[in-house]
Amino acid sequence: MRHILVVGIGTGNPEHLTVQAINALNRADVLFVPTKGRKKVDLAEVRRDIIARYVTNPASRTVEFALPVRQVEGRSYVGGVDEWHAAIAETYVRLFLEELPEDGTAGLLVWGDPMLYDSTLRILERVRATGKVAFDTEVIPGITSIQALCASHRIPLNLVGKPVEITTGRRLHESFPHRSETAVVMLDGEQAFTKVTDPDAMIYWGAYLGSPDEVILSGRAVECAGEIARRRAEEREKHGWIMDIYLMQKGADFDDE
Amino acid sequence: MRHILVVGIGTGNPEHLTVQAINALNRADVLFVPTKGRKKVDLAEVRRDIIARYVTNPASRTVEFALPVRQVEGRSYVGGVDEWHAAIAETYVRLFLEELPEDGTAGLLVWGDPMLYDSTLRILERVRATGKVAFDTEVIPGITSIQALCASHRIPLNLVGKPVEITTGRRLHESFPHRSETAVVMLDGEQAFTKVTDPDAMIYWGAYLGSPDEVILSGRAVECAGEIARRRAEEREKHGWIMDIYLMQKGADFDDE
Ligand SMILES: C[S@@+](CC[C@H](N)C(=O)[O-])C[C@H]1O[C@@H](n2cnc3c(N)ncnc32)[C@H](O)[C@@H]1O
Ligand SMILES: C[S@@+](CC[C@H](N)C(=O)[O-])C[C@H]1O[C@@H](n2cnc3c(N)ncnc32)[C@H](O)[C@@H]1O
Repeated sequence: MRHILVVGIGTGNPEHLTVQAINALNRADVLFVPTKGRKKVDLAEVRRDIIARYVTNPASRTVEFALPVRQVEGRSYVGGVDEWHAAIAETYVRLFLEELPEDGTAGLLVWGDPMLYDSTLRILERVRATGKVAFDTEVIPGITSIQALCASHRIPLNLVGKPVEITTGRRLHESFPHRSETAVVMLDGEQAFTKVTDPDAMIYWGAYLGSPDEVILSGRAVECAGEIARRRAEEREKHGWIMDIYLMQKGADFDDE
Repeated sequence: MRHILVVGIGTGNPEHLTVQAINALNRADVLFVPTKGRKKVDLAEVRRDIIARYVTNPASRTVEFALPVRQVEGRSYVGGVDEWHAAIAETYVRLFLEELPEDGTAGLLVWGDPMLYDSTLRILERVRATGKVAFDTEVIPGITSIQALCASHRIPLNLVGKPVEITTGRRLHESFPHRSETAVVMLDGEQAFTKVTDPDAMIYWGAYLGSPDEVILSGRAVECAGEIARRRAEEREKHGWIMDIYLMQKGADFDDE
């Protein structure tokens, strides 16, 4: 039986690595590092740094592979993702069979934490479902971008005793501010915060969190949405890609008791 | 100016510590460890282990202190918490003034991540507001119980592209399953999962996650709520206290597209 370690590596700061993650990386015979695309090149660089810094196991090998790219043209959203996940699953089948002995251990370095808006665990289920290669998995948590955001702003995520919604840009309008007093927004390609008109909504925004390029901005959303959108566009232009996240909040601790 | 490092230590597994947290603990002149109460004694033990294992700075001192206990009798919920936070803030004022030189650095070891259902950051704002002691703060994220739960069950938190609600036992009925397909429930003293009647709701439960006493159970909520409630009662009886968390989920990836 092959062993697959799904290791959360945090969000850009190599010091986000946990001792558990470092030990897992050192248990692996092979570490798989995805490459491809401008953003992917930078993120591959972070993974290489982490491996260079923490992997002391002399028997460890790193295998870089080209992650299939998602095709969107002429496909529904679901169709496109399904096809893409299937292609990644085929890539993993090949890597596991070709690069890993039958009782070998491989490490997959996952950005942030594997549980949060990441498809590695789902794709591994597809690999298993092909019946082409047997393996077990172990998951090692890593610091998420939500935590990096709150730490840099030095803020709690939740108001006392109140719920928090984690959502995407596309769905923010469904919940904030009428249904949730706190919303964390990830995967926002449309700058949904610019559409929030509630004068009491606060925004805490961050990009490239954990990396030397980190930028954070915060304030009353109606007042600083324009500045954040401008800064976001500038940074995106400069780097060729952007990863950003924000928390929106309205209300106060204890105001519902 | 004094420096206060608010360090997330993960949820019971000393290997949850990040390199950033270990470095922060080693930067501190003084580490403050709260004690008191049966549960607190066990949790103080975890903190002592972490310090013994990772702190190599010979100049580092550990100061244990009795955390004030929350009084509930004859008080509203808000009144009780407010009084309790004020008492902790006074304790911190005293500790910072008495145990920390004017340019000294202290570390507070916070369970999980300081952003998640934890009052340390709020209480530090109260300390600052007293005007009795000036300091700056730095926050170091730590693995949360949500991450430990998902890692042990090897599951993603969210369905593809869909939101997640983090909530408390008292409020679960407000959102799940009618409003959120995924809810993570913390601080549940009332076993709210036993009231969920939706036959499609799944539950992923865990107690003492990350520690050698970890227990996890999962299945269709209507089918295994009884078993979880029984096991929870047994474990609570055995240890004298319990910390548990669960994820409830209904629906499937992509079923909304
Ligand atoms: C596919 S999800 C992966 C999330 C990751 N698994 C985690 O734990 O944070 C990518 C989204 O995460 C957020 N993100 C990840 N890393 C980030 C960073 N360093 N700075 C800001 N946002 C980040 C952004 O919202 C981005 O759109
Ligand atoms: C006051 S909150 C603190 C949460 C913590 N800051 C974190 O990041 O997980 C306490 C709640 O967290 C959850 N919790 C914390 N540690 C846990 C563990 N080791 N196992 C299960 N649940 C845990 C439980 O729901 C508990 O009621």
